[in-house]
Amino acid sequence: MRGVVMHAPGDVRTEELEMPAILEPTDAIIRVTATCICGSDLWPYRGAEPLRPGGRRMGHEYLGVVESVGAEVTGIRPGDHVVGSFVASDNTCEICAAGYQSRCVHQVMMGSVGTQAQYARIPLADGTLVALPGKPPADLVPSLLAASDVLGTGWFAAVAAEAGPGKAVAVVGDGAVGLLGVLAARQLGAARIIVMSRHADRQALARSFGATDVVEERGAEGVDRIKELTDGLGAHCTIEAVGTQESMDQAIRATRPGGHVGFVGVSHDVALEGRELFFSSVHLHGGPAPVRRFLPELIDLIWERRIDPGAVFDLTLPLEEAAEGYRAMDERRAVKVLLTTD
Amino acid sequence: MRGVVMHAPGDVRTEELEMPAILEPTDAIIRVTATCICGSDLWPYRGAEPLRPGGRRMGHEYLGVVESVGAEVTGIRPGDHVVGSFVASDNTCEICAAGYQSRCVHQVMMGSVGTQAQYARIPLADGTLVALPGKPPADLVPSLLAASDVLGTGWFAAVAAEAGPGKAVAVVGDGAVGLLGVLAARQLGAARIIVMSRHADRQALARSFGATDVVEERGAEGVDRIKELTDGLGAHCTIEAVGTQESMDQAIRATRPGGHVGFVGVSHDVALEGRELFFSSVHLHGGPAPVRRFLPELIDLIWERRIDPGAVFDLTLPLEEAAEGYRAMDERRAVKVLLTTD
Repeated sequence: MRGVVMHAPGDVRTEELEMPAILEPTDAIIRVTATCICGSDLWPYRGAEPLRPGGRRMGHEYLGVVESVGAEVTGIRPGDHVVGSFVASDNTCEICAAGYQSRCVHQVMMGSVGTQAQYARIPLADGTLVALPGKPPADLVPSLLAASDVLGTGWFAAVAAEAGPGKAVAVVGDGAVGLLGVLAARQLGAARIIVMSRHADRQALARSFGATDVVEERGAEGVDRIKELTDGLGAHCTIEAVGTQESMDQAIRATRPGGHVGFVGVSHDVALEGRELFFSSVHLHGGPAPVRRFLPELIDLIWERRIDPGAVFDLTLPLEEAAEGYRAMDERRAVKVLLTTD
Repeated sequence: MRGVVMHAPGDVRTEELEMPAILEPTDAIIRVTATCICGSDLWPYRGAEPLRPGGRRMGHEYLGVVESVGAEVTGIRPGDHVVGSFVASDNTCEICAAGYQSRCVHQVMMGSVGTQAQYARIPLADGTLVALPGKPPADLVPSLLAASDVLGTGWFAAVAAEAGPGKAVAVVGDGAVGLLGVLAARQLGAARIIVMSRHADRQALARSFGATDVVEERGAEGVDRIKELTDGLGAHCTIEAVGTQESMDQAIRATRPGGHVGFVGVSHDVALEGRELFFSSVHLHGGPAPVRRFLPELIDLIWERRIDPGAVFDLTLPLEEAAEGYRAMDERRAVKVLLTTD
């Protein structure tokens, strides 16, 4: 089968790989019908994360059809159309039961499996996969694929930030996750949604998802602007969707005392100064999103066409052209790239 | 009048000071009937915080009787026995209304006033002070004084950590705030309360307040021990009541994914590594405790003799001997020192 391997920063290739096989009785093998490139895939692409010798199988988002299941899989059957989280989880342990499936005691990061491929092994299939009502209509494929990570992550950020009715929500980061954080905040009933963005196309997408205000300033000026828009107090809720020192500082400083920061950008070289955090009096919560918690609800919203998160995909390429997809995202020519497998 | 001034690290004196006067129409002047030394007063005492030339008036905890009020004070009258938070607040602004009176838009830190004195000016008297049902019985004085900061702070930490029924709570720090965090967790219904302490006297006090387990190990061993006591997962709720890098790391590492860390130790030279915080998946909330939020409830519990937070005071000295009180706390001969003013 064909799949994507990153050999070095900037060096992504679609290659012939071994077909995956059932290794554990709780595994399933799926035929991947759609996959995509994540903003977090750009960290190693840009040299900000090490790659092991021999390269790294890429991809952790997936929509597919079940080909075969292990002996202990009971809830998922061959032929099911499925979507799952970027973290495999048993969905039964105490941590899963508390809603933190991304930190399941048996968690497997799907990035270690690699779903930018024609087929993928899904560990803990019963806990990880959610069956769709049927074969997805073609126009819903991008949105259902988005549920696998980028929508679920934006959604978690909005929930972690406690976005809701009457709240002013600030969004730091206009990548796909930040944009879907806007969509989530809107769905959760936020009164005002302020997106920080300097790109006209992303601003337009943010507005289509429900943003009420755009702030182009950054740093201290950006914080001041958000305070101006929120009675001088700062946002009630802030979604951080970048993962840098600047974005974390911006998020904390833009939030009022007692407010909530939901941070989902994978932290790279970030150190939070204790005294500033102390006197900020914000709530801080984030990490790898427990997408599995939200999947059933998100699938329903998509199936009923009440949300259109798939709009974040602005470039679709065949798997064979994955390298161009990485380039397009790296150069910010594309917000998010969908890879087709057939 | 007499009051306490810190002139240099280790140099605390009780001196003759000017009588405070009404400066703003929202002020009250109280005769301080009891005050005390806070763990945070030890930071400058140990040279970890700068002192301005001429020295610093000390103290921010107080129980007293109202002597006079400004023209705009309507809720508090001369003769009222009162207790107030270590942060003066209007208790009406949007931040106060949300329960964050310690970050009121008009906040005044009482440490800038100095309540280790015979009299004190209380800004924003209507918002800051809570009148007691009457003259407090002598045996309730220590507990009511504790409500001013140390109890309210421990209580906030427990609330921020979401201590409650069925929860396993870890407490990092066996100073007065940590000990009263134990008391608060117990009152909030926690199933298990694990205090980290190496001092037999503090362990005993912690047990009297409701601790079910004591962990003497620190660092990685301490974290391992807490995990052993919590099904390998870590505490649901952790109270951090120290403010150092070690204590913050310990608190975050001792908490299960999805759990809550309430941190109230004033941060000194702390930097939280972003990636570790991200993958910890904990909720982090803390800062200067909004004691005013909890005061009415805490006063009721004390007045009905349902809690005895005053037990943290293990040394009582006259205001004239404040210097000895600082020494005793610095040398850990005393958990907390009450200063009498008459």
